Amino acid sequence: MGEAFGSWEMGNDAELMPLVDMANIACGFHASDPQIMERTVKLAVQSGTSIGAHPGYPDLQGFGRRDMAIPTADIRAMVLYQVGALDAICRANNSRVDYVKPHGALYHRAFADRAVMAVVMQALHDYNDQLSLLVLAAPDSDAIRRLADTHKIRVQFEAFSDRAYADDGTLLSRSIAGSVYKTAEQVRAQTEQIMTQGSVTSISGKVVRFQADTLCIHGDEPNAVQTAQVIREVIAGCSK
Amino acid sequence: MGEAFGSWEMGNDAELMPLVDMANIACGFHASDPQIMERTVKLAVQSGTSIGAHPGYPDLQGFGRRDMAIPTADIRAMVLYQVGALDAICRANNSRVDYVKPHGALYHRAFADRAVMAVVMQALHDYNDQLSLLVLAAPDSDAIRRLADTHKIRVQFEAFSDRAYADDGTLLSRSIAGSVYKTAEQVRAQTEQIMTQGSVTSISGKVVRFQADTLCIHGDEPNAVQTAQVIREVIAGCSK
Amino acid sequence: MGEAFGSWEMGNDAELMPLVDMANIACGFHASDPQIMERTVKLAVQSGTSIGAHPGYPDLQGFGRRDMAIPTADIRAMVLYQVGALDAICRANNSRVDYVKPHGALYHRAFADRAVMAVVMQALHDYNDQLSLLVLAAPDSDAIRRLADTHKIRVQFEAFSDRAYADDGTLLSRSIAGSVYKTAEQVRAQTEQIMTQGSVTSISGKVVRFQADTLCIHGDEPNAVQTAQVIREVIAGCSK
Amino acid sequence: MGEAFGSWEMGNDAELMPLVDMANIACGFHASDPQIMERTVKLAVQSGTSIGAHPGYPDLQGFGRRDMAIPTADIRAMVLYQVGALDAICRANNSRVDYVKPHGALYHRAFADRAVMAVVMQALHDYNDQLSLLVLAAPDSDAIRRLADTHKIRVQFEAFSDRAYADDGTLLSRSIAGSVYKTAEQVRAQTEQIMTQGSVTSISGKVVRFQADTLCIHGDEPNAVQTAQVIREVIAGCSK
Repeated sequence: MGEAFGSWEMGNDAELMPLVDMANIACGFHASDPQIMERTVKLAVQSGTSIGAHPGYPDLQGFGRRDMAIPTADIRAMVLYQVGALDAICRANNSRVDYVKPHGALYHRAFADRAVMAVVMQALHDYNDQLSLLVLAAPDSDAIRRLADTHKIRVQFEAFSDRAYADDGTLLSRSIAGSVYKTAEQVRAQTEQIMTQGSVTSISGKVVRFQADTLCIHGDEPNAVQTAQVIREVIAGCSK
Repeated sequence: MGEAFGSWEMGNDAELMPLVDMANIACGFHASDPQIMERTVKLAVQSGTSIGAHPGYPDLQGFGRRDMAIPTADIRAMVLYQVGALDAICRANNSRVDYVKPHGALYHRAFADRAVMAVVMQALHDYNDQLSLLVLAAPDSDAIRRLADTHKIRVQFEAFSDRAYADDGTLLSRSIAGSVYKTAEQVRAQTEQIMTQGSVTSISGKVVRFQADTLCIHGDEPNAVQTAQVIREVIAGCSK
Repeated sequence: MGEAFGSWEMGNDAELMPLVDMANIACGFHASDPQIMERTVKLAVQSGTSIGAHPGYPDLQGFGRRDMAIPTADIRAMVLYQVGALDAICRANNSRVDYVKPHGALYHRAFADRAVMAVVMQALHDYNDQLSLLVLAAPDSDAIRRLADTHKIRVQFEAFSDRAYADDGTLLSRSIAGSVYKTAEQVRAQTEQIMTQGSVTSISGKVVRFQADTLCIHGDEPNAVQTAQVIREVIAGCSK
Repeated sequence: MGEAFGSWEMGNDAELMPLVDMANIACGFHASDPQIMERTVKLAVQSGTSIGAHPGYPDLQGFGRRDMAIPTADIRAMVLYQVGALDAICRANNSRVDYVKPHGALYHRAFADRAVMAVVMQALHDYNDQLSLLVLAAPDSDAIRRLADTHKIRVQFEAFSDRAYADDGTLLSRSIAGSVYKTAEQVRAQTEQIMTQGSVTSISGKVVRFQADTLCIHGDEPNAVQTAQVIREVIAGCSK
């Protein structure tokens, strides 16, 4: 959330914020700017929503979704910078960053390259060891848990309600048609499967099992509010 | 300090750092980037130098020295963002931001426009009320002290050893020849006058009185190391 | 037009383009990027719309609407850069830049400071003396015509159909409520007055006379398409 | 050349320019800004040096040397934008862009991925079919010549006097020690071999044959002026 920039709006954060328990807030590198960050933090504080920093590549034009060959070691300071910027804005509003979720191409690179994930984990530990890191829920989560233990940081695993999966349990690339769900039916079905069966069905029909702590949706999608409402309904149904 | 950017170097921070008690470190808006910030923080930590955040306008090309009509209210988040970014990098290196000094055109605007200074003070208070704000030492420092009391933040006043003054006690504009001292003699004479008489002599010969807590020099000047050594000598001489 | 940026959309250029004879296309400094520029140029070519370069301050976050103290002499290269960038994209699409209209704070500064306008005129002359410069229609247009003659460049004067005027014939600042017309009635009345009487009525009721060659509307306003249709109707009515 | 940015200098263009026949001038994406571009163009005009546009990735912090996953099709507008920006500055100084050499990671990507090279060639043809494209001289230059014929653009092949080669005839990565020659002896030996034998000897001792039209050196290296002088001496010796 908070993925507007300057005069350009994106998403409907005011409507969406009360519907989510955790908000990944952009930190000015792939989207957002200081004003929009403070506006978004205030929305989160009003709703009692937990705040996560959403650091990305320094690429506003590409929205952080174009991979960049930033040396692994340089990712440490790049993440610290963004997390600290958001944390200061939170603290000036009587709040704080609770967790961190890397954004876009950085998120996928950290998942695919454990050296990058280790750098991110160590950076967070060194800054504030109460932070947790949000990671893609996947069949091999145990390896990530061990890495997190090594770097003395907590992790939370997230599944996606609004994205199609590849056979290996990663998200289907945005460049492939159908990778982002546009209908409430798709979202509802996948959310129910995640919650009741601990799995998703990949684009080719393979069942991928994992354990998920949270469900992720994308605030920049036009149907984000509806998607959040569908998930709320599924959760309410499951907890009956 | 820390005013390199990417592949471009500026100043000689490694030599200068051990010579200063306080280092104003650029925060990525007028100069620097996350890697250079961490490199500079490490230098400061090695030297036991106190770290100040040096937030500026978002204008790398203009080095934050071109005034920008950023609305006063927007300066709050702009400052919080930069202070927090540096603070996170400090904290990940077992250090912290001790004080804040706005940079360049923002520094002069905050001094000339008390509404801007009030916004900066309130932002710092809201983030971390242990921070102090560095302000230009001037004849009317009492008014600034009262403003700081209102916003519950400490201030420190600084005089400049390497810049010529205008008659009103502000710094002579960089666009005027002679505004930046290039010789050790100029630096020595002005530093001695500040320390022994609590005054500077303006470009037109007027004596301007003020109380100063610290002395400022510019790390991006080619003679910065020499300037710092001259000041060290003057201080040693004064404290005999 | 073409004021989207990266993933952020703005305006409805596809609908608006066929309704206008001249399109001021952003050049990447206050808005747009190379992809969006080429997309917008293609729309203009399809509609047979004349293309104007819309160079602005290097300030995406502020959309070029925050004044920046860029030295007057530096505006020359800043304008050349942007005009050339758009012209290359035009020429690669069998088109060309026909005219130039500075954007936002640069537009107002050039109008208020004739030294800036002279620099812009000379830059355009030196690049391509077939370009014309779009300038705010005002009571003292003769002085601007003489300046243009000195710099051997043509000028065209434009009146605004969708903006309120101050008493001195400049546009009412965007910071004042009512400065941007939101209703078709306001647009219709002002357009009719410009076309039939060669004047506008300022916010305080003063009639300001001038000669205008073109009418300007803002493509980033949500009602831009409707505004253009209203103007088309007024023009059709006037030319009966 | 022209790889300064804002207040940050790089290289010694004033001394180097008279020593080179062709100057690749940065276009503001990986380095430079409009003022520095015009300053550099004026130097080239004074020396009668042919001007080449040196477009790069939009990554000032990384100096265009970090690969970016910009979609192949998007490279077209990105290149047109930069070439046109420099060409306008040239034309306003009675000069013009004669040729284009992609910079850094974009240069290497275009060489490794012929779809990217084809996009660059077509963009240049569509803008100005009198431009030529500078390409790394390599054993398989015939394939590149055929691609250039398809896109109706001329190519020139360049060899590097100041860089070590890999066995496949590409440049040894900058991340490997010894990839950039620091001594006059290395430069002299490689230049003589290129000129007299049409080959270089790779880091592992393999002789790589190619035909080269021009010799390239890097203006951002501290020894650039000396390197250019060495090459001048070798050329003078060869042409006796």
